[in-house]
Amino acid sequence: MDSRRVGILGGGQLGRMLAASASLLNVDVVILDNGDDAPAKQIVASSSHVDGSFSNASKIRELAEKVDILTVEIEHVDVTVLEDIAKTSKVEIHPSPSMIRIIQDKLVQKQHLRSEGLAVADFVEVDSNADSVKAAVKQFGLPLMLKSRTLACDGRGNYVLKGVDDIPEALSALGGKPLYAERFMPFVKEVAVMVVRSVDGETQSYPVVETIHKDNICQLVFAPLRHSNPDVLSRARTLAEDAVRTFTGAGIFGVEMFLLEDDSLLINEIAPRPHNSGHYTIEACYTSQYENHLRAILGLPLGSTAMKVSAAAMLNLLGYSTDMSDITNVAHTALKIPGASVHLYGKRECRKGRKMGHITLVNDHEAVLRANLRHIFSALPDSDSALTNLFTPALPEPGSGKSAAHPLVGIIMGSDSDLPVMLPAARHLDQFEVPYELTIVSAHRTPERMTEYARSATTRGLRVIIAGAGGAAHLPGMVAAMTSLPVIGVPVKGSTLDGVDSLHSIVQMPRGIPVATVAINNSTNAALLAVRILGGSVPHLLSSMDAFLKKQEDEVLTKVAKLEYVGWENYGKSTI
Amino acid sequence: MDSRRVGILGGGQLGRMLAASASLLNVDVVILDNGDDAPAKQIVASSSHVDGSFSNASKIRELAEKVDILTVEIEHVDVTVLEDIAKTSKVEIHPSPSMIRIIQDKLVQKQHLRSEGLAVADFVEVDSNADSVKAAVKQFGLPLMLKSRTLACDGRGNYVLKGVDDIPEALSALGGKPLYAERFMPFVKEVAVMVVRSVDGETQSYPVVETIHKDNICQLVFAPLRHSNPDVLSRARTLAEDAVRTFTGAGIFGVEMFLLEDDSLLINEIAPRPHNSGHYTIEACYTSQYENHLRAILGLPLGSTAMKVSAAAMLNLLGYSTDMSDITNVAHTALKIPGASVHLYGKRECRKGRKMGHITLVNDHEAVLRANLRHIFSALPDSDSALTNLFTPALPEPGSGKSAAHPLVGIIMGSDSDLPVMLPAARHLDQFEVPYELTIVSAHRTPERMTEYARSATTRGLRVIIAGAGGAAHLPGMVAAMTSLPVIGVPVKGSTLDGVDSLHSIVQMPRGIPVATVAINNSTNAALLAVRILGGSVPHLLSSMDAFLKKQEDEVLTKVAKLEYVGWENYGKSTI
Repeated sequence: MDSRRVGILGGGQLGRMLAASASLLNVDVVILDNGDDAPAKQIVASSSHVDGSFSNASKIRELAEKVDILTVEIEHVDVTVLEDIAKTSKVEIHPSPSMIRIIQDKLVQKQHLRSEGLAVADFVEVDSNADSVKAAVKQFGLPLMLKSRTLACDGRGNYVLKGVDDIPEALSALGGKPLYAERFMPFVKEVAVMVVRSVDGETQSYPVVETIHKDNICQLVFAPLRHSNPDVLSRARTLAEDAVRTFTGAGIFGVEMFLLEDDSLLINEIAPRPHNSGHYTIEACYTSQYENHLRAILGLPLGSTAMKVSAAAMLNLLGYSTDMSDITNVAHTALKIPGASVHLYGKRECRKGRKMGHITLVNDHEAVLRANLRHIFSALPDSDSALTNLFTPALPEPGSGKSAAHPLVGIIMGSDSDLPVMLPAARHLDQFEVPYELTIVSAHRTPERMTEYARSATTRGLRVIIAGAGGAAHLPGMVAAMTSLPVIGVPVKGSTLDGVDSLHSIVQMPRGIPVATVAINNSTNAALLAVRILGGSVPHLLSSMDAFLKKQEDEVLTKVAKLEYVGWENYGKSTI
Repeated sequence: MDSRRVGILGGGQLGRMLAASASLLNVDVVILDNGDDAPAKQIVASSSHVDGSFSNASKIRELAEKVDILTVEIEHVDVTVLEDIAKTSKVEIHPSPSMIRIIQDKLVQKQHLRSEGLAVADFVEVDSNADSVKAAVKQFGLPLMLKSRTLACDGRGNYVLKGVDDIPEALSALGGKPLYAERFMPFVKEVAVMVVRSVDGETQSYPVVETIHKDNICQLVFAPLRHSNPDVLSRARTLAEDAVRTFTGAGIFGVEMFLLEDDSLLINEIAPRPHNSGHYTIEACYTSQYENHLRAILGLPLGSTAMKVSAAAMLNLLGYSTDMSDITNVAHTALKIPGASVHLYGKRECRKGRKMGHITLVNDHEAVLRANLRHIFSALPDSDSALTNLFTPALPEPGSGKSAAHPLVGIIMGSDSDLPVMLPAARHLDQFEVPYELTIVSAHRTPERMTEYARSATTRGLRVIIAGAGGAAHLPGMVAAMTSLPVIGVPVKGSTLDGVDSLHSIVQMPRGIPVATVAINNSTNAALLAVRILGGSVPHLLSSMDAFLKKQEDEVLTKVAKLEYVGWENYGKSTI
């Protein structure tokens, strides 16, 4: 593809996945890391190994002499030598050493972002002594985030200070490194966006994902983020892209953010390289973060960042002990699950908290994705049932009358008096194992609730809305006016006019806003229509619908046979 | 994942892609091939290279000593030594040497398949002399397929004999190798199915694909096969699975078949390994053929063979000359196309006809997939416009009144008199760039045509049907009764009853068969509903629908401003 060689500083799992993408494009890579056993070196012919540390200046120079482009899989590299190589040779370096320098010092990173007008939490530099920390407590209150400025990752270098009495312990835990303090932000979710930037400055972002951390280490990623406020999704992507644009150099960047109660966003930190919040892109997107990083630094056209599946989750496989079999047991469980991909990094030793691999799950829809993830959770040695129930709730039992946490179909009705008419819709969706929610939304009595319901439907993950209403029957049409999803209207028969009033109110929509109308009181057909609609994106439902039609046919044919057997005069009386 | 090591006989592109899958699962592989530059060896650390030929007995023994499981990426290996290794060591061999032996000799392969009752073309053994060939001509007529029994691949070893005068040339071209003759079957398509079989005999198949050969080399693969007869798809999978079940051993198998005019299928040949008709599975399926081969031979659970995208195409990059830049130019064109993945195999030299790489395209739907492929075709040095127009027809110009070759929406109406009512549907689909077809299907006057249309809709690739009808208006409901797709009904207003007759005929369907009914004469809303429905599987249409709703809103707000500006008394007269 490109005869230029790429040198990667660091041979860990990110380097390994970069090298795998490079081999697809037949781009030669050379890996700098200690020994021959580093994960990335295992998948690159040995002639392309450089033995040494990515923070050793002379080794970096040795690597630079073998390649045309240098890039990093870790930011803790010797920047001074990179700056010198950039000045004194033709080797291109991506991202730019100046960016890596800013990123390396988290305080400088925050100062940079703030000076560019980007939203970050309040912060202040502190010295490694109690008085300086106390001054920060006075300024920002408690709890207070104390953070190492440098060499921090995967939670090492963060301390949540709960009281001034803990200051000595905090300073000792942070080991005398340069520090800064940050106002503790009570976020409701952590989210992240991968951004790729080409050598000529074109910037594209991947979908917003939800990241779940435990002990400051990312455990779990869900893509895309499901949220009731569609603005949050567009604002997060814009914020991430804006942040990356303030730096120079090409490549992929991970932007981690806090989402607060009021739906505002703050940048937490930026990684100048592939990031585990983007692992899911390998299976779930048209172009992975790794391939796009290579495309960016090689000056090739950027690939599509869109998802090619409806939902994805990524579970980091963190070491539980020195016993590798804990990890392989989880991996074996995952292999039984359709749509699960197991990535093991080839690390020779397992240690508690070490990133040994990850599992990506993809699916046609969120509810099955999470049910599948639940199986994998149950195989974890430190399986946490609270976390499991929070992120992978069990599907409600059919007939339990409870809404699914991640519905594909929303069944709404104008009044509880419509419930008997709408119940068959629920029962038919149960039969097809389609997750749904059922609730009351009244156009006339709860117009604001209706607006919110319609506006949030897409980003909450709904794909079809079934709305039942009687009489003037405005609900289906008003909801259709405020969403891009297909809306199915069920005319409910009232006490006068035999439901023709409802039918005409629902079906006779003006040009521009369609409502898919079914027969009066026939919520069964609304559910069956929803299943047919979902068949476009959940292919097995098409087969289920084929089977349903066949069963209906067989039922009638049985009656044909019975009619012939007992004769029509006895048909009603026969018990055969 | 598994501490057992896998030895691969052959280090070409198939071995390379197997090795890439192995590295994901952290399964160690050892490659046997000549030199250190073989494609597969480039992505495996050099300590796992064995230098030598996969047909050299002592080298195969050397490989066997280093591994726990042996497998092949090519069938032209020394089977006798494999049989001996199977007997005298604990090394497992997949697929079984006995299967490889049968497959190696195409005559024996055909005899085996015929003896198992599987459909193959008529064939007979011939000797390498004119009399023997003439006897075969007498038996099967002309043209006659003459084929080498052994060491044939990618078209080498096949000769289409058109007249007895060509026999000397044919024998010379086939170079004195053992031969057989086959009745020439005038197929309408070539199709293929990848089948994976686990060590305990579980068998699963991938979707049926269409393969397009030129000079007996596979050029192009489309997945899934689009066909108007749904039975063909299920019969092809069954035939392929049945064929694989007649052999012993685990792994992935490529079954190539001929589809004849009468929709019957014949097995052409079987590959006991990954196959280029399954390359597309890397990006398009939940589990690639390579990973499933490894899972199968390692005794791990098989992964899902389902597609995770709606449509895929694979283009083999065959050398045009010794100039590598021909290939990289095509690859560069592909990188500009969303959903295109470039695979280059790292072969050091380019030669005419050599497999240098492949490009896989995936997309939400077939029409855009083929339009994208058309761009890539145009970058081929030997671009063939007839082939291009056949397989990647240009989309019809909006407003041309022509149906797309690969429509997502079918617009049908009971009579040409309904056309003026249905035209707005076509125009709105044009606006959203949704490919569609438009035709007349009458429930009452062409009931058989209606049945065929409804029954073939899914496998032809349609996802929504819009049916317009007036009066007794049976078309939408009858079509809905014979397909699992969502059907949208447009009641057409007749000369009496104001269209209420049509509305009630369409909307009042019995429980079990829904029709999504829109307002009388409102085919605009039918098209907009179709776009909303497609939004579930073609996500950018959801954004287009958002933009459409915004534009509608803006148009009304402009009128609000005008009304305020000119006053209502002058509103109709003003030209502002």
